[in-house]
Amino acid sequence: MSYPFLKGHGTHNDFVVLPDHDGSVHGDLDAARVRALCDRRGGLGADGVLRVVREQDRWFMDYRNADGSIAEMCGNGIRVFALHLVQEGLADAGEPFGVDTRDGVKTVTVDGDAHEGQVTVDMGVPTVLGETEVSVGDHTWAATHVDVGNPHAVAFVDDLADAGSLLEAPAYDAAVYPHGVNVEFVVRRGEGHVAMRVHERGAGETQACGTGACAVALASMAGSGPATYRVDQPGGTVTITRDREGRVLMSGPAVIVARGTTDL
Amino acid sequence: MSYPFLKGHGTHNDFVVLPDHDGSVHGDLDAARVRALCDRRGGLGADGVLRVVREQDRWFMDYRNADGSIAEMCGNGIRVFALHLVQEGLADAGEPFGVDTRDGVKTVTVDGDAHEGQVTVDMGVPTVLGETEVSVGDHTWAATHVDVGNPHAVAFVDDLADAGSLLEAPAYDAAVYPHGVNVEFVVRRGEGHVAMRVHERGAGETQACGTGACAVALASMAGSGPATYRVDQPGGTVTITRDREGRVLMSGPAVIVARGTTDL
Repeated sequence: MSYPFLKGHGTHNDFVVLPDHDGSVHGDLDAARVRALCDRRGGLGADGVLRVVREQDRWFMDYRNADGSIAEMCGNGIRVFALHLVQEGLADAGEPFGVDTRDGVKTVTVDGDAHEGQVTVDMGVPTVLGETEVSVGDHTWAATHVDVGNPHAVAFVDDLADAGSLLEAPAYDAAVYPHGVNVEFVVRRGEGHVAMRVHERGAGETQACGTGACAVALASMAGSGPATYRVDQPGGTVTITRDREGRVLMSGPAVIVARGTTDL
Repeated sequence: MSYPFLKGHGTHNDFVVLPDHDGSVHGDLDAARVRALCDRRGGLGADGVLRVVREQDRWFMDYRNADGSIAEMCGNGIRVFALHLVQEGLADAGEPFGVDTRDGVKTVTVDGDAHEGQVTVDMGVPTVLGETEVSVGDHTWAATHVDVGNPHAVAFVDDLADAGSLLEAPAYDAAVYPHGVNVEFVVRRGEGHVAMRVHERGAGETQACGTGACAVALASMAGSGPATYRVDQPGGTVTITRDREGRVLMSGPAVIVARGTTDL
């Protein structure tokens, strides 16, 4: 069976997009097919699959990790998802619309010039929960515990190279993070500007992490009022804005690089 | 500019195929575009690009490595290339045809049932050149020096795990291999049956190496008469046959997994 796909990425976090508006193509998208699609040599290759489903009056992002497991939400994936909807004429550029996810409805806005692929996502209200510590080898840093729907530990370092190869997960306080933690290492680059590396739990060091960039910006901001930070990641740059109510908006790029059919 | 592509693999050595019959689409395929296509997160992702060009009465395989450099020939790539020609009706299944490469014209045969994607390639007459040594860490093995157009060192080991992580290139005799060497580690599995791992110069450990499988089979064969060996690689199995004249035929799988358009 041959079916349509697209391939795209947000700050080099990459996805296979599967249009399946009425659920008739992949109603029973099984883990084996997700793994086959995401296989970087035998398949198309991706960090995850974004199935595009119409549910009542909204688009639902059925997100799967490359290993076939189900995930609630992906800050980089939803930008690609939103850009796809606009490029196909299924949503309008320049005005906010809702995308349903397993973590609830997220409000997204694709910039007026959809070709540029700049997309803003309302990431909700993250919470800064206090101080903790993380370690790599025999090097330990103070870190800020931030909850962005998922757990983060943000450590400011003198040099991003100080975190080493990050082939292994940094050590953390299991009493604070009983289900593991995403660890960000951050350097200040200037006023409202930081750079980061991230070790994602279960995935290792990645090119970019949407919730991680939000956590980093929150940990970098003084006070609790409105603020904007540019966050450089190995895979690209996003801009994080905290508004008066504490809501966090992430703006970043999305690109669709190919479209076609596959029988994987 | 949007242009057509296909994605496929042979024993998990994967390729972007670019149909460009009259050279009008990619007449000047530059290294930057090859790198963009092969980028595993920002692009389609592949080990190399196979541009399909018609030259006089033959198809020319314009092969590029993922880094944009030009390569003469690729034993896994030419199987994918040949399968593509047959699937598009540009060549016939079940009978040999010539594919032009920078290493000369290679004779290929796609099995009668093209859907299965079993392809045989005449790899020419490799030469067994004598004995040498390779080392990983403080472990040294005797190895057979085989020339398959490119240089190989084939070491028989007790267990494929003995070669370790192969993150670094094995040590070799630079007097024997002034331009580096592809190193294969082999275990015998039974009559006419071996399994191998390979460290390709410039690429590290890979899932499969067509010329490496030929070198391994040659080093495994007794005498100089006709013989057939099954060679298991991490990415899949190929069958190597040496005929009466010393010519080596490699038979192995090829798969096209997707087709579409890209503007990379």
